[in-house]
Amino acid sequence: MERVAIIGASMTQFGQREAWIRDLIAEAGKACLEDAGVDSSAVEHLYVSNMSSGEFEGQGGIMNMLAHDLGVLPAYSQRVDQTSSSGGAGIYAAWQSIASGASEMTLLVGGEKMTHKTTGEATDIIASITHPDEYKHGVTLPSFAGMTARHYLERFDAPRESLGKVAVKNHKNGVDNPHAQFRKEVDLETVLESPIVADPLRLYDFCPITDGSAALMFCPESVAREYTDDYAVVSGVAGATDTHVVHERPDPTVMNGVVESGKGAYEMSGHGPEDVDVAELHDMFTILEFLQMEGLGFAGHGEAWKRVEAGDTERTGPLPINTSGGLKSKGHPLGASGVAQGVEIYEQVVGEAGPRQVDADVGLCCNVGGFGNCVITTIMEAGQ
Amino acid sequence: MERVAIIGASMTQFGQREAWIRDLIAEAGKACLEDAGVDSSAVEHLYVSNMSSGEFEGQGGIMNMLAHDLGVLPAYSQRVDQTSSSGGAGIYAAWQSIASGASEMTLLVGGEKMTHKTTGEATDIIASITHPDEYKHGVTLPSFAGMTARHYLERFDAPRESLGKVAVKNHKNGVDNPHAQFRKEVDLETVLESPIVADPLRLYDFCPITDGSAALMFCPESVAREYTDDYAVVSGVAGATDTHVVHERPDPTVMNGVVESGKGAYEMSGHGPEDVDVAELHDMFTILEFLQMEGLGFAGHGEAWKRVEAGDTERTGPLPINTSGGLKSKGHPLGASGVAQGVEIYEQVVGEAGPRQVDADVGLCCNVGGFGNCVITTIMEAGQ
Repeated sequence: MERVAIIGASMTQFGQREAWIRDLIAEAGKACLEDAGVDSSAVEHLYVSNMSSGEFEGQGGIMNMLAHDLGVLPAYSQRVDQTSSSGGAGIYAAWQSIASGASEMTLLVGGEKMTHKTTGEATDIIASITHPDEYKHGVTLPSFAGMTARHYLERFDAPRESLGKVAVKNHKNGVDNPHAQFRKEVDLETVLESPIVADPLRLYDFCPITDGSAALMFCPESVAREYTDDYAVVSGVAGATDTHVVHERPDPTVMNGVVESGKGAYEMSGHGPEDVDVAELHDMFTILEFLQMEGLGFAGHGEAWKRVEAGDTERTGPLPINTSGGLKSKGHPLGASGVAQGVEIYEQVVGEAGPRQVDADVGLCCNVGGFGNCVITTIMEAGQ
Repeated sequence: MERVAIIGASMTQFGQREAWIRDLIAEAGKACLEDAGVDSSAVEHLYVSNMSSGEFEGQGGIMNMLAHDLGVLPAYSQRVDQTSSSGGAGIYAAWQSIASGASEMTLLVGGEKMTHKTTGEATDIIASITHPDEYKHGVTLPSFAGMTARHYLERFDAPRESLGKVAVKNHKNGVDNPHAQFRKEVDLETVLESPIVADPLRLYDFCPITDGSAALMFCPESVAREYTDDYAVVSGVAGATDTHVVHERPDPTVMNGVVESGKGAYEMSGHGPEDVDVAELHDMFTILEFLQMEGLGFAGHGEAWKRVEAGDTERTGPLPINTSGGLKSKGHPLGASGVAQGVEIYEQVVGEAGPRQVDADVGLCCNVGGFGNCVITTIMEAGQ
């Protein structure tokens, strides 16, 4: 079977935007058509990754609206929802559309418009994806993160500072990302003294609420070669679901969705964790970066914090993680985030990451929905 | 490439149900596993077709919840939204998952819970998928249908009775569907004298608001043969999008999404309209059955009403349409409807439609989102 290629990428400015979801996805979609050099009439399938435009804006049908706005009619258009991993699920859907032969040119656009809601309102919308039996007791995603972090730090005798260093690193990386919501460094002291949100986690352990959109263009490798010499191939992609009731998991420090989706993506690509040169992990909360490093085999169980302390995941280290700034500094517009991870890895493997560029033949991104309820892992490498 | 087979189907009772979306999709999902004789551990991908569980119930993440409830973990799970054609889009997604090799056993469950809302509230949620520039002027889907029906009847000199006969036929068919919301015949006089909703359309020209769920099990044909001799194959499936702004269409009686998706499905299957023995069309409004008959080539432009008047689309006619009772009498739980159309065509081509059975080698279903904004056409036939 022919490999699936990516020939273009784009993302809007992430942050507080004076624009509705319709405007954001149109902005990223148009930019991606331009970046790929693809005429709108060539697009056969259009996927829109979005979690909650109905709840955030009372607006449905945004994929049909985008198909209209981009002039790609009569292309097939569909919305992909997998909560906060909708973007990763969009990558998987786009891959399937090409690999199955259903489409020869698929545009994926992820987006979310959130900042017009209060933090409380947004948290409630996000919490609606958790299990009602847990949510009715007041357990939101940040509180899961707080409980998991406390357990992790105590069980593995990890210093609180190691979590803080994830935030410091990702903020530092974000300075070089022109589309990031926060382009400012923070020092460890600031992180550790910021207000408590879900003890032991503090404000700087959490990603912000964000508006934004990102896009990728997919086609078969033979078609990619007609457009460019610099394309990426999706050599591995897989998804997995974990228990919807978080407290039913045997070990709170193991996200089985990460483990299983990683296993699937590695197997498909023929690569293992040791081959990965750069990774985008879903640092919605700092503790999640540890859990994904371990679930994906970048560190032993309970040992991710040691690699962070050693500086291994810095941009200059052997395994740079979240060179884009991550969700932490780049922002986390739910449906856009997984696509934006893909944009960073695409740019890294084709050598277009500018000041953020690292030496990368193989890149990985891991997009986490809910509190690990559903996870997609994607592996890309440069085509030729 | 190996063909994609369907080896099991189920649907819940449609109607007013004392059950939430979570319960409905679990009920259909379990029944489909049983009908297919597939163990939950064999399921690799799970798709949930649903338009608006967030807006109707404030509940997100229903695909992860269902994966948990059915015990199919760590199967990949994702929600498919294409507004009222989410079910058809789910068939397309499931087809792609098998055809791409991503999955060897895919369960598709469509569902919606609506009746706990007032008709006004439900109409507002549904209207959120239309273009805001039209909706702000008060144009809802029923009003589009009314305007289109008036134009059609006047332009093609069609009798008002011909539309009424669609409702009479579909109610008659629904009597033999144990899962239908309304299992009662209505006579033409009742239809024509029912209260006006959007002139010239009256109450009986509209489908009801419904709770319900339906499911289908997909796998490669070689795997199907391990389970059963009686399976269907999806020989054609395609989707298309039309203008989101309805008034921009050159001819209000032509739904280009129907035309284009039909063209794609026919081309892929090697069949033409003349080969179709039975069809499920999206009769959300009676006028839509005419527009789909014409768009799919079952009648010339402006001439569908003549075939209805001639009785051609009755269960005993040469082209039975909506043998299930259609959306009109079976009900229209948005995300479930396209899947339920597939359930009927599957049962017809494998010979399991009981009292509704017609002589059918090739069946077609057409699922319409919005007012033709997005359309999926699927063609099935008996395997081997």
